[in-house]
Amino acid sequence: RQVDTTKIHSAIMNPGEVREGILVYEDPSSDWYIWSDHRIYWDAAVYMGDNSNQETLPMTNGAMLRRGIIQFKATMYRDWEAYIDLNASQGDALTPRDMWVARHFRGDFHNFFIQAGNFKEATGIERLTSSRLITFMERGGDGIFEDGRRKGLALTYFNPHIWAQAGTWGQEIDQRRFTQDNEAWGFNGRVAYTPIRQDRRIVHIGAWASVRPPDADNNSRVRLRGRPESRIASNDSQRFLNTGQISDVNNYTRYGLELGTVLGPLQVQGEYKTFNVNRKNDLPNPSFWSGYVKASYFITGESRGYFADEGEFGNFDHPRNSWGAVQLALRYSRTNLNDESAGIMGGDQEIITLGLNYFATRYIRFYFNYAFVRSDENANGAGSLIPFNYTYFQTRMMVRLP
Amino acid sequence: RQVDTTKIHSAIMNPGEVREGILVYEDPSSDWYIWSDHRIYWDAAVYMGDNSNQETLPMTNGAMLRRGIIQFKATMYRDWEAYIDLNASQGDALTPRDMWVARHFRGDFHNFFIQAGNFKEATGIERLTSSRLITFMERGGDGIFEDGRRKGLALTYFNPHIWAQAGTWGQEIDQRRFTQDNEAWGFNGRVAYTPIRQDRRIVHIGAWASVRPPDADNNSRVRLRGRPESRIASNDSQRFLNTGQISDVNNYTRYGLELGTVLGPLQVQGEYKTFNVNRKNDLPNPSFWSGYVKASYFITGESRGYFADEGEFGNFDHPRNSWGAVQLALRYSRTNLNDESAGIMGGDQEIITLGLNYFATRYIRFYFNYAFVRSDENANGAGSLIPFNYTYFQTRMMVRLP
Amino acid sequence: RQVDTTKIHSAIMNPGEVREGILVYEDPSSDWYIWSDHRIYWDAAVYMGDNSNQETLPMTNGAMLRRGIIQFKATMYRDWEAYIDLNASQGDALTPRDMWVARHFRGDFHNFFIQAGNFKEATGIERLTSSRLITFMERGGDGIFEDGRRKGLALTYFNPHIWAQAGTWGQEIDQRRFTQDNEAWGFNGRVAYTPIRQDRRIVHIGAWASVRPPDADNNSRVRLRGRPESRIASNDSQRFLNTGQISDVNNYTRYGLELGTVLGPLQVQGEYKTFNVNRKNDLPNPSFWSGYVKASYFITGESRGYFADEGEFGNFDHPRNSWGAVQLALRYSRTNLNDESAGIMGGDQEIITLGLNYFATRYIRFYFNYAFVRSDENANGAGSLIPFNYTYFQTRMMVRLP
Repeated sequence: RQVDTTKIHSAIMNPGEVREGILVYEDPSSDWYIWSDHRIYWDAAVYMGDNSNQETLPMTNGAMLRRGIIQFKATMYRDWEAYIDLNASQGDALTPRDMWVARHFRGDFHNFFIQAGNFKEATGIERLTSSRLITFMERGGDGIFEDGRRKGLALTYFNPHIWAQAGTWGQEIDQRRFTQDNEAWGFNGRVAYTPIRQDRRIVHIGAWASVRPPDADNNSRVRLRGRPESRIASNDSQRFLNTGQISDVNNYTRYGLELGTVLGPLQVQGEYKTFNVNRKNDLPNPSFWSGYVKASYFITGESRGYFADEGEFGNFDHPRNSWGAVQLALRYSRTNLNDESAGIMGGDQEIITLGLNYFATRYIRFYFNYAFVRSDENANGAGSLIPFNYTYFQTRMMVRLP
Repeated sequence: RQVDTTKIHSAIMNPGEVREGILVYEDPSSDWYIWSDHRIYWDAAVYMGDNSNQETLPMTNGAMLRRGIIQFKATMYRDWEAYIDLNASQGDALTPRDMWVARHFRGDFHNFFIQAGNFKEATGIERLTSSRLITFMERGGDGIFEDGRRKGLALTYFNPHIWAQAGTWGQEIDQRRFTQDNEAWGFNGRVAYTPIRQDRRIVHIGAWASVRPPDADNNSRVRLRGRPESRIASNDSQRFLNTGQISDVNNYTRYGLELGTVLGPLQVQGEYKTFNVNRKNDLPNPSFWSGYVKASYFITGESRGYFADEGEFGNFDHPRNSWGAVQLALRYSRTNLNDESAGIMGGDQEIITLGLNYFATRYIRFYFNYAFVRSDENANGAGSLIPFNYTYFQTRMMVRLP
Repeated sequence: RQVDTTKIHSAIMNPGEVREGILVYEDPSSDWYIWSDHRIYWDAAVYMGDNSNQETLPMTNGAMLRRGIIQFKATMYRDWEAYIDLNASQGDALTPRDMWVARHFRGDFHNFFIQAGNFKEATGIERLTSSRLITFMERGGDGIFEDGRRKGLALTYFNPHIWAQAGTWGQEIDQRRFTQDNEAWGFNGRVAYTPIRQDRRIVHIGAWASVRPPDADNNSRVRLRGRPESRIASNDSQRFLNTGQISDVNNYTRYGLELGTVLGPLQVQGEYKTFNVNRKNDLPNPSFWSGYVKASYFITGESRGYFADEGEFGNFDHPRNSWGAVQLALRYSRTNLNDESAGIMGGDQEIITLGLNYFATRYIRFYFNYAFVRSDENANGAGSLIPFNYTYFQTRMMVRLP
């Protein structure tokens, strides 16, 4: 009656193998798969603009450790997967990012997995895509509607053409021990459909929705704030887009649409999303929106892939030249936090960004971004800043080391 | 005359091996043994009770990263052993836990090792047992008499039936740079005797003692505070058990007794300990006590082992079923911080906990704890809370990844 | 036309190998070289002196985690090198130290590499030498003129006898998001010449220079402060050497000279450096200086090596005895922050240190330092302390684990 369960607990591994710059350990039957993925992102920026209305330009030039990541990941005897991911941005202490466990099912349900811990809630494709794979240094409409990773529990289905996830997410990992309210939990769902998924030819369509109450101990308030797709000089007091605190909030809903395609060296992608606040006592319900469209082109001919298990575009295939690959990119983004009918004027910001990426290898990358920022008169940091138009140049060195 | 000492410095390692879910490197002669032991503990809790005397239940429901551990360990050329262990609880930054070096002796003294650095002081078996091996989510009388790891220096003797440790421990690792007093150092000793230590049949008897002065720069004061064996919603202001600051302390002594046995799938364990404050100026000397008794039973038939070099119960043997092992558990604990004769009434707390553990493997574990908490009228957080009785349900997902 | 670039991305590694206590992975063609270097430094100190003028000796005895280091390093397909280095001193959270990427050139320029990220600016040899290789527990004139690692970009040339580096360094890694000024960038250059570099016989001559503006958002001020080559009890308020804030600073220059030699078991090394403040508005320009000379001798006969690619002395060769190596050492250091003509009297401190090092192996080391500290009447912590002479004994256990 006794079953031999030793293989679940032990295995002799193959020699270590570098794959895509990452050192991987695997056993001969691929039941165990263990790797680490450490990364460094160094950024620098120069801001230029007519700040004659301001004593000094509120964004000063400088350099910054954008991310210093330590990551350990493992597939443990086939079904279980775990991630530990810590980040030391800006010289701050190492704090958790991804910290989760997943269980893949077998047999009839082998297309499902369940995931628990700290991870990104199901939102748009740009937010879900790893920072090492996004086209520009920062995401379009960076961090305004989505608040990062959260404590959550989600069920995911995927096959080569469909990806669907539904789950519940609480608050951010450093938010706990609430004294007045229980932790706030919201619900998200996302579906991605990939009707065409061939080599160098991909079409992706996605949609997502979410409903969340305000965070615990926050007195039923919600505030949206935004950076200009640049972080080097953007501290909390320098966010021009800012709705201020919106009071008496029951909950807020978010909806998003995604479109993306790969045609050989070209990739085109766009998203549109809304943020809708539902308030108590017949108070007006403001709605905001954000969107972007971007195109990138490998002049060296490479083409991006697709991750079926994540419903996202992946890395490009191997560079065709030993010295690396070069990509040009263009993005237009707009975020409108003005809702005149509801009396909330958080500002309207348009950004056009030109990008040049040089990939020395698939895991060593240099970014060059030049952006033109237009702010309307309401983009005044909830009254603390004077809006103006400016440009900036920012650059990044990114390396993934084993 | 020149000795070949190269082997002390270099060795070719065997292929990596997964053992118990941990990736281990060893050289053919086992002189070097290197492994990492990363872990994730995710907790969630719901608190229920008649809090009609309170505006809101002072413990709110939520989820928490209880531990996010990065650990590197090595045996270095046989005699030397070193641990680096860092933890990112609750989304906070990664801070040190174990950080020590040990030297094992040879020849006549091969049963001895000396250890220096940051590690647990010699106290009771429950406190010394790794968090991944304790029966319930939190220890009985959790953290009230023992203050975690300390900077220390200890000598340990062990053979298959006896474990004995004596040492001196300073303050906690983040306490240094004292401006008024030198660092406070105390002394601890513990002896464990295992008259029966067979497969599936173990008897353990232990005793320990400690004397410590109050911490430096703390004005000769000592305070004991207690959580209800639950951490999710228990921040510093929500500890019902609380003696308040006890002034004019010369030193305090602690004594403990331990009993434990394994009989096949059954384990029974209990502890009793006292905390005795010695004060200056003929002030009254309060004494407090805490204890628990617990029983656990593997309904799938497994049995726990024993670590001779740590004087503690270890993990269970391999699960008998490929789908894992199931354990039922029951605990009664009581902590009495009232000493009427000394005029310190810190509260009296009794907790009965029902536990169910599901071990998917020996290193992936799910906990389900349901507890009944009874507080006396003095368990009022040193005057800041209204005592009441309540129950809670808490659950944990624990994974150890390579 | 398509090039096979797969080798840049993947390689099968040799078995892991312990080298000098560090676990190293390398592929057969040595294109990839991956290792980690974790370390623990535990310190303890006792301070002794006539503090009759002070209520308590401002330095209290205790123990401290001086460094708890997690490091990951890799050479990635020959040309690229990356370091991630994090430190948890004193039980604080893990924060970044080295965090950089380097590119080595090929062909005619194979003696050059370019480096970007967070790393030490080019200053004197003692500061540049890894903490695990310095002779005493702390550097001579510890941390007074050099402010640690900075965000920088540098070009380095080296051959077996010449090392030269020029670069620009910004502010420290945790200093960013300046609200008034752009990040301050300075320039450093260093040249080291090694006319003799044989086995057990080395002569090193070096010189360096630097010019830097004051840090951003610091109102054009500069302050120098100093510890007595001991950290255990030296918090910010216990630095006897202290110039106070020097206002209206345009920039400051630093110049240094280095001499060092190895003659078998003997090493002798000395440095002299100046710190010169250039102020606005015809304010007086104070100058300060610091220097040390030290000698160390392996009574067990070992001899130190030299790192050509870093222009520094390296570790010693293999111990001649299986039980380890013993080194005696003596240092005299002086730091003079008094400039009477400029009206800045920051104090003058002389320290004589006796050292004994026991190396159990090349990567497990015990330090014993006994120091005599003489302070002049201006070494009063910018008015907050009463200067006096004292001695201290401090000891360290250092281990490098794989």
